[in-house]
Amino acid sequence: MKLATLKQGGRDGTLVVVSRDLTRCRAVPAVARTLQAALDEWDSCEPQLRQVYEALNSGAVEFQPFDQAACASPLPRAYQWADGSAYLNHVELVRRARNAEVPASFYTDPLMYQGGSDSFIGPRDAIVADEAWGIDFEAEVTVVTGDVPLGATPAQAANAIRLVMLVNDVSLRNLIPAELAKGFGFFQSKPASAFSPVAVTPDELGAAWQGAKVHLPLVVHLNGELFGQPNAGVDMSFDFGQLVAHVARTRALEAGSIIGSGTVSNKQGDLWGSSIAHGGVGYCCLAEVRTYETIEQGKPVTPFMKAGDTVRIEMFDAEGRSIFGAIDNRVAALAS
Amino acid sequence: MKLATLKQGGRDGTLVVVSRDLTRCRAVPAVARTLQAALDEWDSCEPQLRQVYEALNSGAVEFQPFDQAACASPLPRAYQWADGSAYLNHVELVRRARNAEVPASFYTDPLMYQGGSDSFIGPRDAIVADEAWGIDFEAEVTVVTGDVPLGATPAQAANAIRLVMLVNDVSLRNLIPAELAKGFGFFQSKPASAFSPVAVTPDELGAAWQGAKVHLPLVVHLNGELFGQPNAGVDMSFDFGQLVAHVARTRALEAGSIIGSGTVSNKQGDLWGSSIAHGGVGYCCLAEVRTYETIEQGKPVTPFMKAGDTVRIEMFDAEGRSIFGAIDNRVAALAS
Repeated sequence: MKLATLKQGGRDGTLVVVSRDLTRCRAVPAVARTLQAALDEWDSCEPQLRQVYEALNSGAVEFQPFDQAACASPLPRAYQWADGSAYLNHVELVRRARNAEVPASFYTDPLMYQGGSDSFIGPRDAIVADEAWGIDFEAEVTVVTGDVPLGATPAQAANAIRLVMLVNDVSLRNLIPAELAKGFGFFQSKPASAFSPVAVTPDELGAAWQGAKVHLPLVVHLNGELFGQPNAGVDMSFDFGQLVAHVARTRALEAGSIIGSGTVSNKQGDLWGSSIAHGGVGYCCLAEVRTYETIEQGKPVTPFMKAGDTVRIEMFDAEGRSIFGAIDNRVAALAS
Repeated sequence: MKLATLKQGGRDGTLVVVSRDLTRCRAVPAVARTLQAALDEWDSCEPQLRQVYEALNSGAVEFQPFDQAACASPLPRAYQWADGSAYLNHVELVRRARNAEVPASFYTDPLMYQGGSDSFIGPRDAIVADEAWGIDFEAEVTVVTGDVPLGATPAQAANAIRLVMLVNDVSLRNLIPAELAKGFGFFQSKPASAFSPVAVTPDELGAAWQGAKVHLPLVVHLNGELFGQPNAGVDMSFDFGQLVAHVARTRALEAGSIIGSGTVSNKQGDLWGSSIAHGGVGYCCLAEVRTYETIEQGKPVTPFMKAGDTVRIEMFDAEGRSIFGAIDNRVAALAS
């Protein structure tokens, strides 16, 4: 089943069920007006939403054309957005560039941060930021949970996963060093994230959803050029069950919590072996290629995003059909 | 105006207007069913809520008795909970205990972390945790904002403050060192917080609300004994306008964002001069007295909270009347 949220209808938008091929959609006010409302009462809403989904796919119900550009993030605001860093290759690379060790605990204990969740931007909205902040994207996979009790095991946590989405976890690289040095984690360096137009139930991924991971390439275009397509199922050190259980160790999670994978990253050889131009799988953020450049050339060469630059993030099924629709954010200068 | 949320009525509870003396309340379904709904449409809701408040105070309207024990946190779940550390005395003390410097930037740039906001416990609910985690309370003042634009100045941010509350920012001290060492800030070490039964508009504080600070003692009882009563208006290095503006530097805040002051702490001399027993103002957390003990006796003596221990947090006006009602949390053992 595929769900999205149109911007019209207030702060939480309007929930629509979307056809598998992303061409048709239908609002379902009699079931739930918003995605959060559906997640709050998932057991009763889900079967009704699935009925609409089947009818949409078979053409047996009235519909409106589905327009990805009219979408808000599936949850325009959420009660929780916690992001992991489960692709340790990303962590190893960034640390190697500054000759820092990766602590042994990182391989057994997920690294996570609490993100701001009160006002996400939409999948086609502008990233409004100051270029001096070092604007970067991070392409990731995320899940949306139902209620998860305090102390849930990874298996219990995996069973509480309701939906899968993509995210652009926008990062302001030049603000990060000073912020992390203060010891309390990211804050200003993580502005509003953008999620994919469509959220899908795990069954929609078929065999690609295995072991609470999504085994498909995450495809990133920068200014229209292919920049990365690492496989989200490869080199993910902690699966989504483990990530959600990490969050639930000392507190219960409420339905609608969004948990992220961290920047998708596959282990590769060196700069030339890893880039798309040289047959590699490329990258899901600029920081990673800048790290390769620093290791091999002494300094980063690829610039951060500038006003007018665009990043497009999507994922395709085995037949090449877009699963989640595309995140496509353009950078806009901050009015001063 | 005073507002609270009764637990009945679903995940977001039922908004009630509460009389100034905290004896009477009245649901207002025709205005707003929940506090978030009122904050979402504050400009239209506020005047209507104030009419009910005046009628409740004068006895000119039907009411039900107000029971603090029936309350959820005013926002049982919120879209944002960001907590500062504005009382630098607290930071200085904790660092002095481990011979660490306070970086110069801490005096000009607020220290803040993003907290989990998806499921707060109620003001009289149990803190369910493992004693081995080092269970501590942190008594603080918080504000709830309306919408705040990206880049708001401290003055603009102060004008967007809609409500004031108290909080017990429960902290698991034994989990903090390993977690902060990972570099991404607090996560498992900050379980669900509890807010005061009642949220009040700033005007309700009269002259005690000045310069976007609350100039009143914050009164903490541990197991029925007075433990601290430092003044929240003293030694607060950043006012709430500055704290909210810090959050808004790189992203807009949505209505209903909760921003905290950090543990209230007044500059004092030494352990004996600062404790209640010796005429001092005492403390708003156990970590602080344990720090004094470490500095003066080589090791902490006061234990963290154990199952059955209670902490009560409240604030009184000049006439000795409770403003927000009382947070009163008992520790309950984690079922294993």
